[in-house]
Amino acid sequence: MSIVDLRNGLDRDELGQELYGLIAELYPICRSITGEGLRQTLRTIQQYVPLAIHEVPSGTQVFDWTVPREWNIRDASIKNAAGERVVDFQRSNLHVVNYSVPVRRRCSLAELREHLYSLPDHPDWIPYRTSYYHEAWGFCLTHNQLLALKEEEYEVWIDSSLEDGHLTYGELYLPGEQEDEVLISCHACHPSMCNDNLSGVALAALLARHLVSMPLTYSYRFLFIPGTIGSITWLSLNEAQTSRILHGLVLSCLGDPGSMTYKRSRRGTADIDRAAAHVLAHSGMDHQVLDFVPFGYDERQYCSPGFNLPVGCLMRTPHGRYPQYHTSADNLDLIQPDSLADSFLTCLSILSILEDNKTYLSQNPKCEPQLGKRGLYRTMGGIADADRFERAMLWLLNLADGDHTLLDIAERSGLSFDALRTAANVLCQHELLDGRPKPARPMAQN
Amino acid sequence: MSIVDLRNGLDRDELGQELYGLIAELYPICRSITGEGLRQTLRTIQQYVPLAIHEVPSGTQVFDWTVPREWNIRDASIKNAAGERVVDFQRSNLHVVNYSVPVRRRCSLAELREHLYSLPDHPDWIPYRTSYYHEAWGFCLTHNQLLALKEEEYEVWIDSSLEDGHLTYGELYLPGEQEDEVLISCHACHPSMCNDNLSGVALAALLARHLVSMPLTYSYRFLFIPGTIGSITWLSLNEAQTSRILHGLVLSCLGDPGSMTYKRSRRGTADIDRAAAHVLAHSGMDHQVLDFVPFGYDERQYCSPGFNLPVGCLMRTPHGRYPQYHTSADNLDLIQPDSLADSFLTCLSILSILEDNKTYLSQNPKCEPQLGKRGLYRTMGGIADADRFERAMLWLLNLADGDHTLLDIAERSGLSFDALRTAANVLCQHELLDGRPKPARPMAQN
Amino acid sequence: MSIVDLRNGLDRDELGQELYGLIAELYPICRSITGEGLRQTLRTIQQYVPLAIHEVPSGTQVFDWTVPREWNIRDASIKNAAGERVVDFQRSNLHVVNYSVPVRRRCSLAELREHLYSLPDHPDWIPYRTSYYHEAWGFCLTHNQLLALKEEEYEVWIDSSLEDGHLTYGELYLPGEQEDEVLISCHACHPSMCNDNLSGVALAALLARHLVSMPLTYSYRFLFIPGTIGSITWLSLNEAQTSRILHGLVLSCLGDPGSMTYKRSRRGTADIDRAAAHVLAHSGMDHQVLDFVPFGYDERQYCSPGFNLPVGCLMRTPHGRYPQYHTSADNLDLIQPDSLADSFLTCLSILSILEDNKTYLSQNPKCEPQLGKRGLYRTMGGIADADRFERAMLWLLNLADGDHTLLDIAERSGLSFDALRTAANVLCQHELLDGRPKPARPMAQN
Repeated sequence: MSIVDLRNGLDRDELGQELYGLIAELYPICRSITGEGLRQTLRTIQQYVPLAIHEVPSGTQVFDWTVPREWNIRDASIKNAAGERVVDFQRSNLHVVNYSVPVRRRCSLAELREHLYSLPDHPDWIPYRTSYYHEAWGFCLTHNQLLALKEEEYEVWIDSSLEDGHLTYGELYLPGEQEDEVLISCHACHPSMCNDNLSGVALAALLARHLVSMPLTYSYRFLFIPGTIGSITWLSLNEAQTSRILHGLVLSCLGDPGSMTYKRSRRGTADIDRAAAHVLAHSGMDHQVLDFVPFGYDERQYCSPGFNLPVGCLMRTPHGRYPQYHTSADNLDLIQPDSLADSFLTCLSILSILEDNKTYLSQNPKCEPQLGKRGLYRTMGGIADADRFERAMLWLLNLADGDHTLLDIAERSGLSFDALRTAANVLCQHELLDGRPKPARPMAQN
Repeated sequence: MSIVDLRNGLDRDELGQELYGLIAELYPICRSITGEGLRQTLRTIQQYVPLAIHEVPSGTQVFDWTVPREWNIRDASIKNAAGERVVDFQRSNLHVVNYSVPVRRRCSLAELREHLYSLPDHPDWIPYRTSYYHEAWGFCLTHNQLLALKEEEYEVWIDSSLEDGHLTYGELYLPGEQEDEVLISCHACHPSMCNDNLSGVALAALLARHLVSMPLTYSYRFLFIPGTIGSITWLSLNEAQTSRILHGLVLSCLGDPGSMTYKRSRRGTADIDRAAAHVLAHSGMDHQVLDFVPFGYDERQYCSPGFNLPVGCLMRTPHGRYPQYHTSADNLDLIQPDSLADSFLTCLSILSILEDNKTYLSQNPKCEPQLGKRGLYRTMGGIADADRFERAMLWLLNLADGDHTLLDIAERSGLSFDALRTAANVLCQHELLDGRPKPARPMAQN
Repeated sequence: MSIVDLRNGLDRDELGQELYGLIAELYPICRSITGEGLRQTLRTIQQYVPLAIHEVPSGTQVFDWTVPREWNIRDASIKNAAGERVVDFQRSNLHVVNYSVPVRRRCSLAELREHLYSLPDHPDWIPYRTSYYHEAWGFCLTHNQLLALKEEEYEVWIDSSLEDGHLTYGELYLPGEQEDEVLISCHACHPSMCNDNLSGVALAALLARHLVSMPLTYSYRFLFIPGTIGSITWLSLNEAQTSRILHGLVLSCLGDPGSMTYKRSRRGTADIDRAAAHVLAHSGMDHQVLDFVPFGYDERQYCSPGFNLPVGCLMRTPHGRYPQYHTSADNLDLIQPDSLADSFLTCLSILSILEDNKTYLSQNPKCEPQLGKRGLYRTMGGIADADRFERAMLWLLNLADGDHTLLDIAERSGLSFDALRTAANVLCQHELLDGRPKPARPMAQN
C-alpha cells in the first residue's frame, strides 16, 4: 500500500472523529515548553506510535540559546478577602501566565492589577500569555472577571517550580527506501488550546501511526517539540543530519473551519512548495498559498539562513488571523472533525506527490506511440476531443523526456497529479514509459 | 521581391477568390489517409507547383507505427426494402465511415443501427467518422435520415477495397540562401470538408506557388500529408534532416469567419512563436495565442520529445471549437474568401518576420548619431513628441548592439516589426546600421 | 551626517522656498545651448558650489556631432507700419526662435507668416521653438497676437550673432570613499522656462551644496549642461571615466504639481532603478515608474548602447505630458515650492538607499539569535503579531546570508528600506549582523 492508496481508502468521518478524540484526550493537560505536561502529552502519543522521548538538561547551550529551567505547576489561585478563589487554575490552566515563578502573597487590587491580563474586546475569554525567558508571575482572566474585582485585599498563590531539569521532546524516525527525509514537525507546548497546538499534534501522531507500517520511498522524521526552543534544540543536536531533509512540513492550526493555507518555505520553489500548492489548487476548495515570512512557527528556525531547509507550514486559518487565537476560546468548540479530516487528507495528498514524483522517460520519444493498437485509445476517429485519460497519456508521452518530473508535467498541463499518476502507471505497464525516482538531491536553491 | 513586398502587393479580394476556387475544386474528392482521392488531390496541386509525390508501401515500419493498407472506395449505399438508396455515397462521401471494409449484405434495422452514426444535436448534418486502424464498416447519416428509417430489411453495400498499396504524400523543397528550413505542413486526408483540411491545403499550395520564384533567405519545405501517419512517416524517412528545421507552421482551419489563433510550439518561445504572436498582436483584430498541448494536428508529432521541433499551428477557430467541425456542414458555406485571404496574409507576415529578423549593429553606438544632418529628423526643435518613424529609428539605434534582433526590438519597443524594418532599411542606407542575418542555429531550448 | 540624516533634518517649507527662489533668480535669463545666458546661469550656481566651468570650442568633433557655433542675442522685435513693437523680445525671450540667425528686413504679412509660430489651442501662450542645427530665423507669439496682425508692412529685427565661440558646461566632482560615481545631470539650455530646465537645475545645485560638505560613500559628479549636445560633449571628452558611473539620475520637470515619475535606465533593473521604484512605492503618494524609451532627456545619450550606463530620469509630470510644456506657461506660476521640496526629498531618499545598500551577514545564521536576552524583543509571549521593528529584525536576520543587499531584503519583505536600515543599525550594534558595503562593481547587465 502506498500513501495515495491510504488516502483513497480512509473513511473521512471516522478519521475526523479519531483526530478529534485524540485532541479531546490531550486538551486538559497543562503543557509548557518544559515539564510534566509536555511529558504526559508525549506519553499519550506513545500509545499510538513508538515515539522516542528525549530529555535535554537545563543549561544546555543550543546555538545562541540556553535550554531553560524546567517549569512545573500544581495549583494557583487568587482569593478575595472572603477567601473565595475568584481566579482558579483548576478551572483553566490558562489562568496562570505560563512559566510564572512561585508566589504567595497578599496585595491590594492596585498591586494585583499589574499582574493581570484580560481581553477587553472579548470579555468572556481568557488570554494565553507566557514569560519563558523573563522571570515574572501573572494571571490571565476574563475581562468580566477583572471588572468584578473589588477594592479589597487579595491573596495570590502560584504553586509552581522553576528549577534545573530538562527540556523534553518526542521523535519518531521511520526509515524508507532512501535516507533522504521528510520532516514533519509540530509544537506541543501550549496548555489547553486545540487549534493552535493540538490539531497539529493529533495530525502528526495519527499520520505517523499510518506510515509506521507502510513501505515508504523517503524516510520520515516526526518531531513533537516545544515551539522555538524545541526546534532550535533539535537542530543544534542534529546539525549534521539536517542535510538529509529534502522536504518538510510544520503542522499547526489544522482544525478550525477556515480554508487551507500553505506557507512556502524560504526557498519558495522547493518541491514541498510546489506539491502543496498543487494539492490546494486542485482541491476545488478555497485556499491560499503564502510566501515565506520569518515569523510564525518552527519554520522560522528550519528556514534560518544557516539551514535554509525546504520546510513549509500547513495550516487552515493562519495563527493570529482568527479571534480565538491564543485564548481560551481556542477550545473543543472551535475545531471540527471534518476540518481535521480534510487537513489530514490534504497532508497525505502532499506527501503522496513527494513519494511519487518520478521522472519518466518515453520509450518512443520520436512521434507518438500508437496507443490504439494497445487498446489505450478509442478506435473510432473524428471525435472532437480526447478525454481526460487520453490527454493525460499524451501529456506524459510528450514531456517524458527525462527532464520533467510528474509534478512538472502536472503544472504545465494543468491536469491533476492524481490523473497523471494513474495514466503513468498504465503507460509503464505497457512499457511505453520508464519511471525512475526523481534524482534525490536537487541543488540547493536560495 | 521579398516576402514583405509580396504581402504588400497582393490584392486581397483576388487572393480570397483564388484560395476559395482551389478549395471548391478539391472539395468533391473523397480523400483518406491513403488511396486515389489523396493522389488526385496532390495531382491537382501539381498544376500550381512542381510537387514531388512520394509513395510509401503498406507495411513499412515508421517508428511505432506501420503504414496501413491502401483504402479505395467506388460506391456505397443503404437500400430500403423498396430498393431505394436511402443513404447514398454519391450524394456525400461522408456517408461512409472512412476506411470501411467492403460489405454487401441484408440486415434488419436493429442490426444496421449498430453501424450508423448521426448527430442528434444537428439533425441535418452528416458526421465524419473514421476507423483507420480497426477493421470495421459503418455509415454516417443525418439524424433526420436515421429517424426516418422504418423497421424493414435493408441492403448495405460498400464497394471499397483495403489492400496492400501505398501511402502517398506530396513534398516541395524550395532552396534558399541558407540550408536551414522553414517547414509548412498541412494534412490532406479528409474527404469533403473545407475548413478542416482544404483551407490549409489551399493556403500551402498558393503560398508555395508564390515562393517558388522568389529569392529566399531560408529554404522552405512544404508537406501535403495524411494526418498523423503522414507526419510520422515523413519524420521516420527524413529523420536526419529534421535538425535543419528552424521554424515551422502547421496550417489548418484557416477559412472560417472566426478570429486568428496561433498555438505555440512545445518550446513556447521559439522564433516562430514570437513572430506569430507579434503579427497577431499588431493585427488590430481579435486573436488568441494558445500554449502548446499535445493534441491537435501534426504539430503533435513534430513536437514529440525526440524531435521537439519549433513548429506551431496557425488556425482561425481551433479544431473542435466550431460546431461544424468534422461534419458535412464544414462545407463551402462555412469558409469565406476574405477569411482565407486574411489567413494567407497573416502567414506571409509571419514568414516575412522570420526572413527579415536580422541583428543590427549601430555604427555610432556612443551617443545618438546626428539624424538631423542626414535629413532624417525634423529641423525645428521644441515639439513635444517624436513621430513614429523617428521613434522607430531611435529604438533601433539604441538596441542595435548586436544582441537584439529586430523582433527583440519590436517586442521591447511595442512598435511593429514592419515599422522597424522600414526604419532599419533607411538607417542601413545611411550607413548608420549594419544588418546581419540572425545567427542561424540558436541553441535548442526545451 | 549621512544623506538619510540630511533628508530627515531638512525643513520642507524652507527647502521649497529656497528652491523656488533660485529658480526665480534664473528665470529671466535667455539661455541657449551655447552663449552668455548659459554662462550667466552657471555663474549664478557658482554662488552655491565651486562649479568648474568648461568651455569647448565650436567645431570640436564629439562623436557623430560637431560643437555648433555660439549663439548670442541682444534684442529682437517685429514692428508694424506704425513703428510699434508688436512682438518684443524684451517682453519674453521665447518670442525669438532660439538660435535664429540675425535678420533685419521689411516684409509683408504673408512673408512674415512663414516665420511665425503660435499655439491655436492655447491662444495666450507663446511656444518655445529652436533651430540649432538648421540656419533659420523666426518668431514665436501668442495666437491672439498672430490674429491681431493686419495686412501691412512689418519690420523684423533680430539682433543676434552666430559665430565661432564655445559650448559651456558646468561640472562639480565630489570625491567620496569610493571612486565609483553617482552622476547627477541636468540640462540648463532653455530660456525662461521653470519646470523644464530650471527645476532640475535648482535641485541639482542645492543638492550639490548639501553634499559638498558631507562624508560620502560614492563620489558624486554634477553636470549642468546644454541638452543633447552637452551630454554628448561630456561623454566624448570623458569617455574613459564613464565606467566609474555606477548610478545616475537625470533631473528634469520637478516643480509641477503632478505626482512623481521615474523612468528606468536602459538596463531596467539597475540599482538606481530599484532604489527609485522602492522610494516611490513607499512614498504613500501617487507615482509612476516607466520603462526606458530612447527619447526624453540626456538619459538618451547616457543609455546609448556604447555606454549603457545605469542612468534613469526623475521627474514629476513627464515632458510633453503637461500642456504648459515648452511654452511661456511653464513659468513661475506652474511650479510649486512644495512640489520642489518633495522632489528634492525623494531624490535624497533614492541617494540614501544607494549609499546605504549594504550586504549584511548574520553572526548567528543557524536558527534565530535570542533577541529577548538582548532587550530587543518583548518579554511577554502569546501576543499575535510581531511589531514592525521586530519584523524588520527578523527579516534581516533571515536574509543576511551575504547574498542579499538591504534593498533586496526590502523588496522581498515589503518593508521600507528606512525601517530595515534602522533595524540593521541596531543589530550591528548588538553584533548580530556584520554590514559590508555592497560589492562595488556589479556585472554589467544588458
